[in-house]
Amino acid sequence: MADTKVYRASTTAPVNIAVVKYWGKRDAKLNLPTNSSLSVTLSQSDLRTLTTASCSSTYTGDDSLLLNGEPSDVSGARTQACFRELRARRAALEAADAALPKLSTFPLKIVSENNFPTAAGLASSAAGFAALVQAIGNLYELPDSPSELSLIARQGSGSACRSLFGGYVAWRMGEKEDGSDSKADLVAPASHWPSMRALILVVSASKKGVSSTSGMQQTVATSGLFQQRISTVVPANMALMEDAIKNRNFPQFAEVTMRDSNSFHATCADTYPPIFYMNDVSKAAIRAVEAINAQAGKTVAAYTFDAGPNCVVYYQEEDAATVLGAFAPLLATAEGWKDGSVVNASVKLDEGIAGTIKEGVSRVIMTGVGEGPLKTDEFLVAEDGTPVKR
Amino acid sequence: MADTKVYRASTTAPVNIAVVKYWGKRDAKLNLPTNSSLSVTLSQSDLRTLTTASCSSTYTGDDSLLLNGEPSDVSGARTQACFRELRARRAALEAADAALPKLSTFPLKIVSENNFPTAAGLASSAAGFAALVQAIGNLYELPDSPSELSLIARQGSGSACRSLFGGYVAWRMGEKEDGSDSKADLVAPASHWPSMRALILVVSASKKGVSSTSGMQQTVATSGLFQQRISTVVPANMALMEDAIKNRNFPQFAEVTMRDSNSFHATCADTYPPIFYMNDVSKAAIRAVEAINAQAGKTVAAYTFDAGPNCVVYYQEEDAATVLGAFAPLLATAEGWKDGSVVNASVKLDEGIAGTIKEGVSRVIMTGVGEGPLKTDEFLVAEDGTPVKR
Repeated sequence: MADTKVYRASTTAPVNIAVVKYWGKRDAKLNLPTNSSLSVTLSQSDLRTLTTASCSSTYTGDDSLLLNGEPSDVSGARTQACFRELRARRAALEAADAALPKLSTFPLKIVSENNFPTAAGLASSAAGFAALVQAIGNLYELPDSPSELSLIARQGSGSACRSLFGGYVAWRMGEKEDGSDSKADLVAPASHWPSMRALILVVSASKKGVSSTSGMQQTVATSGLFQQRISTVVPANMALMEDAIKNRNFPQFAEVTMRDSNSFHATCADTYPPIFYMNDVSKAAIRAVEAINAQAGKTVAAYTFDAGPNCVVYYQEEDAATVLGAFAPLLATAEGWKDGSVVNASVKLDEGIAGTIKEGVSRVIMTGVGEGPLKTDEFLVAEDGTPVKR
Repeated sequence: MADTKVYRASTTAPVNIAVVKYWGKRDAKLNLPTNSSLSVTLSQSDLRTLTTASCSSTYTGDDSLLLNGEPSDVSGARTQACFRELRARRAALEAADAALPKLSTFPLKIVSENNFPTAAGLASSAAGFAALVQAIGNLYELPDSPSELSLIARQGSGSACRSLFGGYVAWRMGEKEDGSDSKADLVAPASHWPSMRALILVVSASKKGVSSTSGMQQTVATSGLFQQRISTVVPANMALMEDAIKNRNFPQFAEVTMRDSNSFHATCADTYPPIFYMNDVSKAAIRAVEAINAQAGKTVAAYTFDAGPNCVVYYQEEDAATVLGAFAPLLATAEGWKDGSVVNASVKLDEGIAGTIKEGVSRVIMTGVGEGPLKTDEFLVAEDGTPVKR
């Protein structure tokens, strides 16, 4: 009797925000970076991708992906690389055990959804590729560790490899030409330093900037300062950051986070033509964090910016009153502000800074460090193989 | 009979805008830079300081300076260093020729005026110290060359040394500990490449930023990328820039100008805490210059920014219609726009960029390459030693 079953597996995967930034590829095809990087995985209660991978001999046509309700192209080299690698691993299992169904030969039907709006301007590709790889890994019942799966996710989107773990995650750049040592590695689980919180200030950008994929390669090609970043600055920051995390040393964590963000954006500004991701609102957020630390008399907050104007402010739970208290007068009515989060407005921001932030921040996301991908019984593909209507 | 004469000498001195930037001191006391730099001297018809130096045995009290009608402190180490050095040279002349009046022993009374408003946010210290040193040099009838006088002006304000020459001027960083080889040097006179024009977009800054004196030392102390700039980037830019000037190669001049400005501001952004001189209006000006070059199909304009948000656009006279034509629809009614300068609005700027510039540029200065200090018979001190009322 033919196997007509629809095989399914679901996972969620988190967003991560780097504190030592990935910027630059030494091999664009394999997504091999010019430097190691390190990130904090954010809680999936607030930000996650849910992906169901399914396959069946009854499916016809090519592999497909439905993303946030819209068909998404999977013919790109990056997605194809993930499918190919995952199928090869499944095929090896099937070759070793004839009793296994030949899932590697079936078309894949994948359905994926984010729980946050694309309008938030958050890089969703990391969570997206991590969920894609983990879901198929689950579907294929691969024995691979998260670190091994991260090798595959990396080929989809570089920073996706870090979303295979929760907590504090390093992406080791590796040295090998085939990229087999360029993968994610757990520095510390979320439970090691569970008090880490993140306030994301979503800044309205008037226009989409340069994509990170093309931007980073322009930086590699044209910035006269970039070599110094990858050869000296980042290795030092990686060592300091791992040390800070191991010792739960927030001031050190914060300083390295801020310096590395500055260094990354400096190499963008040194790109020719220059790339500017931060705008005047972003800079007001930097000044706000500086004012909070100055008025608190100690370092209680750190800013970092990815390839866009949004500011991510890291702080510890015990300093929530101080940090959130400074922003509450401006942002308590903004979308996403969690009521009753605070309030102790002991820190007073300069009027110009406050006005710029109030006017320029369209919503906030209040979250914290969280876990890695979680297997779930929530399916976006029904038992008959059709997408679940939601 | 006692010598009761009031000795006077007047000079004007120009502003200069660097195309390879000075940023960082290796010796703060002597104003010795971490790298060489190169500037274009701007026409004194538009921007100049007029300074009269006078001295007399009848003057009582300390040396004094009246700047734009206000008494100005001359007790600072930098001004004192200039006075001391100039007096020492005069004293040497007097020692060699007993017939010379002993001007070196008389108090100095100096009166100085800029022909541009301080509100323009242009660094006036370069023109100011160049005029001060040249005026006293004239008063003392020193035989020193402009390059030798530049050694003294450098101690007043680093970039002032470049305002001792017209045209295209290098400040060679030198190697000696005493700074005796850190001085200005003529790369080419204005007559070599007289068609160089500058459009200065004066951008309203909401607040005074970090001063260049303290900012550059913060960069030296904290930027992880700075070493690469001074050891590699600037030496390469200096060589390319001198070559561009010698060959009147505008595209090369423009590219190095823009890249060096980007590199300088990148090291500011990499300073901890970061220094941002450019704002969203400055960035719109960068995008405008990029659009002008793209639409012209060749490089006809270059942007550069000093330690502030103002954009200086260099272009050649023959491209005035293209370059000014792009800005005319936005700025023809701005203060300082010279009527009938243009118009060929063949370049059309993006609406967002145009709107940001129109709203954020408060005035313009339209000028070009010009001559060095000029001796003048216009005196700001009367024959009786009193300041001239104007």
